[in-house]
Amino acid sequence: MKAIVALGMTVFLSAEAIGQERYEIPDEAADTARQLVDTALDSDLAYEIVESLTTEVGPRLAGSEAEARARVWGRELGEALGFDRVVVEDFTMPFWDRGEMTITMTAPYEQALYGTALGGSGTGEFESEIVYFRTVEDLMEAADGSLEGRIAFIDGEIMVASQTGAGYGPANQRRRIGWQHAERAGAEALVVRSVGSDSHRFPHTGMMSSLDGEWADIPVIAVSNPDADHLRRLHNGGETIAMRINSTAGWHGDVTSGNVVLDLVGRENPEEIVLIGGHLDSWDLGTGAVDDGAGVAITVAAAQLIAQLPERPRRTIRVVMFGAEEVGLLGARAYAQQHAAEIADHVLATESDFGARSIWQLVSNVSEAGTPAIDEIGRIIAPLGIIRGGSDVPGGGPDIIPLAMQGVPTVRLNQNGSDYFDLHHTPDDTLDKIDPDELAQNVAAYAALVYLAAELDVDFRESTGDTASQ
Amino acid sequence: MKAIVALGMTVFLSAEAIGQERYEIPDEAADTARQLVDTALDSDLAYEIVESLTTEVGPRLAGSEAEARARVWGRELGEALGFDRVVVEDFTMPFWDRGEMTITMTAPYEQALYGTALGGSGTGEFESEIVYFRTVEDLMEAADGSLEGRIAFIDGEIMVASQTGAGYGPANQRRRIGWQHAERAGAEALVVRSVGSDSHRFPHTGMMSSLDGEWADIPVIAVSNPDADHLRRLHNGGETIAMRINSTAGWHGDVTSGNVVLDLVGRENPEEIVLIGGHLDSWDLGTGAVDDGAGVAITVAAAQLIAQLPERPRRTIRVVMFGAEEVGLLGARAYAQQHAAEIADHVLATESDFGARSIWQLVSNVSEAGTPAIDEIGRIIAPLGIIRGGSDVPGGGPDIIPLAMQGVPTVRLNQNGSDYFDLHHTPDDTLDKIDPDELAQNVAAYAALVYLAAELDVDFRESTGDTASQ
Repeated sequence: MKAIVALGMTVFLSAEAIGQERYEIPDEAADTARQLVDTALDSDLAYEIVESLTTEVGPRLAGSEAEARARVWGRELGEALGFDRVVVEDFTMPFWDRGEMTITMTAPYEQALYGTALGGSGTGEFESEIVYFRTVEDLMEAADGSLEGRIAFIDGEIMVASQTGAGYGPANQRRRIGWQHAERAGAEALVVRSVGSDSHRFPHTGMMSSLDGEWADIPVIAVSNPDADHLRRLHNGGETIAMRINSTAGWHGDVTSGNVVLDLVGRENPEEIVLIGGHLDSWDLGTGAVDDGAGVAITVAAAQLIAQLPERPRRTIRVVMFGAEEVGLLGARAYAQQHAAEIADHVLATESDFGARSIWQLVSNVSEAGTPAIDEIGRIIAPLGIIRGGSDVPGGGPDIIPLAMQGVPTVRLNQNGSDYFDLHHTPDDTLDKIDPDELAQNVAAYAALVYLAAELDVDFRESTGDTASQ
Repeated sequence: MKAIVALGMTVFLSAEAIGQERYEIPDEAADTARQLVDTALDSDLAYEIVESLTTEVGPRLAGSEAEARARVWGRELGEALGFDRVVVEDFTMPFWDRGEMTITMTAPYEQALYGTALGGSGTGEFESEIVYFRTVEDLMEAADGSLEGRIAFIDGEIMVASQTGAGYGPANQRRRIGWQHAERAGAEALVVRSVGSDSHRFPHTGMMSSLDGEWADIPVIAVSNPDADHLRRLHNGGETIAMRINSTAGWHGDVTSGNVVLDLVGRENPEEIVLIGGHLDSWDLGTGAVDDGAGVAITVAAAQLIAQLPERPRRTIRVVMFGAEEVGLLGARAYAQQHAAEIADHVLATESDFGARSIWQLVSNVSEAGTPAIDEIGRIIAPLGIIRGGSDVPGGGPDIIPLAMQGVPTVRLNQNGSDYFDLHHTPDDTLDKIDPDELAQNVAAYAALVYLAAELDVDFRESTGDTASQ
């Protein structure tokens, strides 16, 4: 915990506003950072990378053969772009896939619904009336056994869209824990309104939460917002609604996944790591352009621009293409475990995993001593339309969580997420949704930030003696 | 042919601009029309009608049990709203349905594609490499037998969006006639880029054109624009692409469809008919809200407002909910046949079948004597944001074609179609796409137009002696 929180002050005060001295970036480093920005804005590299990944590899379900092809793609990309070290770090994971699924409303009349299994869903075939729940909280109150022989349906609201994605957490409860209550109450299947801010006929998939390590035995299906609206209108009109569901989703034992690690080795402190990245896996419905081909492309392209400089920055810049993020941050956990001995050498970490729109804000969670340097980096990238946000905002992205929990300092370049949850986890997450100019703005911001974080003689870690940079 | 065309003048000249006298609408009729506009703008009736149709009946494939339920719904609606005469006029038609379909890219890797059968598609199961054609014209040049053992793919462009829908015709060639050339060349199946202006992962269905009364023997599948983009990129990258297609689409003999005819009987000239309407059938993928639940709702609601007036207009106002429009204007042809003896009594006809956006333009194709009255009606509805367009523009909507071909005068209230072909014939054509305020603007314009057309002592027909109103 940092002093400004202990004092109960707003997190939006810059370091100098609370009396710290302004940090001075040496002219040469500042010039180099600005030059990286200019170069990035003129470069198509990130777009070419995400085009290549989505076209040549396609959808990349965690643990699948396609995700394995993505690792080959990632390793070859790293080698082609001249990274100093390219390593694929395997790990083992349980494999789930959605199999085949149909969901049809059979009363008051027959109509195909647009649905998809949620991650962790079980197999099953069933037809019955539904029991309608307005919210997940209503289902939580259903008595044990009260849904036997029935399909439960949780309605809810279209997710509130916002720049920050703040609506996701609240909306996501029905996806995460709905099944636990449906099973407890004896339901044969659960259908939920998708967690998405759009009004298109796409279901949104996504992982459920396990309960004591167990997953759903019953089929759990998300239907599109317009389908859920339709069911609500019929229910409100007093109709009895029935459905027929057939899902072959399920678990298929352990498989190999992996992280692809690309390093630019630091010229002075190679053991110190500035870690950036995205996740290589995607849900299988779309081609994972926005989630998270974009993040992989942005961070690889930013590092590649730095690799073109006359010399390496002082510290190592590491780009990690994490595997198996969607199914529970499995690649991130494996990375933290496999690199446990060098966690303290990670001086800063951040991930791009919130789409492909422009970055509008820089937030951080670094040492008191390091915060003024982040403020200054913020000034370098401000012309990109990026404001400085809080200096005590934890979290550098989903795959950074296991590192952050062990004290690794984080920053985050927040993208505009206003339409992220229109596409998120749907078939519609495809390359055409990416604006090359917005993608280049991201690369520019990452390149400047990462270069400076690796070059400046600043320690972002809390001062703990032996792990601090000298 | 009218004089202004014979003179080669622009069709956008109003009647008075070419020297005709301005028509004067009697004050009472003008006041009533303006009052109808005001009432319509405050009314939710049209929205309630389209909500009811899409929710209580759902998708309404031509010839299906669902379309039959829609006729019951239409008859009951007409009776509930106090129309003077409600008749269901049956006709016989051949029934096609899409059955079940899967399309998967199997090389260079396996990926599900988002496709749907085109109307008239045949049954088949096949896996092979594809032969890529950049345009339908390229396929037209394929030699007989040159595609044996292969799946043909026609790429093309995303349909150009425009206010008028002008991009539809050119883009539609691959959907209409592509199969004829694919079969001639021996292809086992044909896949085409959807005809749609969106970049969402929805395929657009729609009818193909028969050839000498014959339909395709092979499966013909439209894939979404993002899928077609994907295939193009792979093709341009030199990849060999293969697909597996399984379709059970096909024809199933003759069934009964029908038109629902709702009349407000004219108080003075009941035999003279002002005909409006929309089509009751829809494609089966969405719920047919925009195409054409909206048209049915707009025209029924407009007539119902007129039915609330103290007395009926002079002429009969007829609302026709046409059956089986999507599969070849079958209801419209049946109507023209069944009403052959009274075609000459149809003094004006128009259909609402271009979505649910605001009307921006009034065009017409009526007698020289009637045109100044249409100009004046245009002035009455101008405050709704509607400009007067051409006075020699044929066509009052698809279902009006068989009447117009026999000389029935037409007008059309052109809606803004800028996003109509984003939704057209996709699963995404659902109620949430309709803006109640825009729908009410439509009702207002129709109510004023139809009331005045039925009330004014003007004949819109070419003067032919005995059929002219006295």
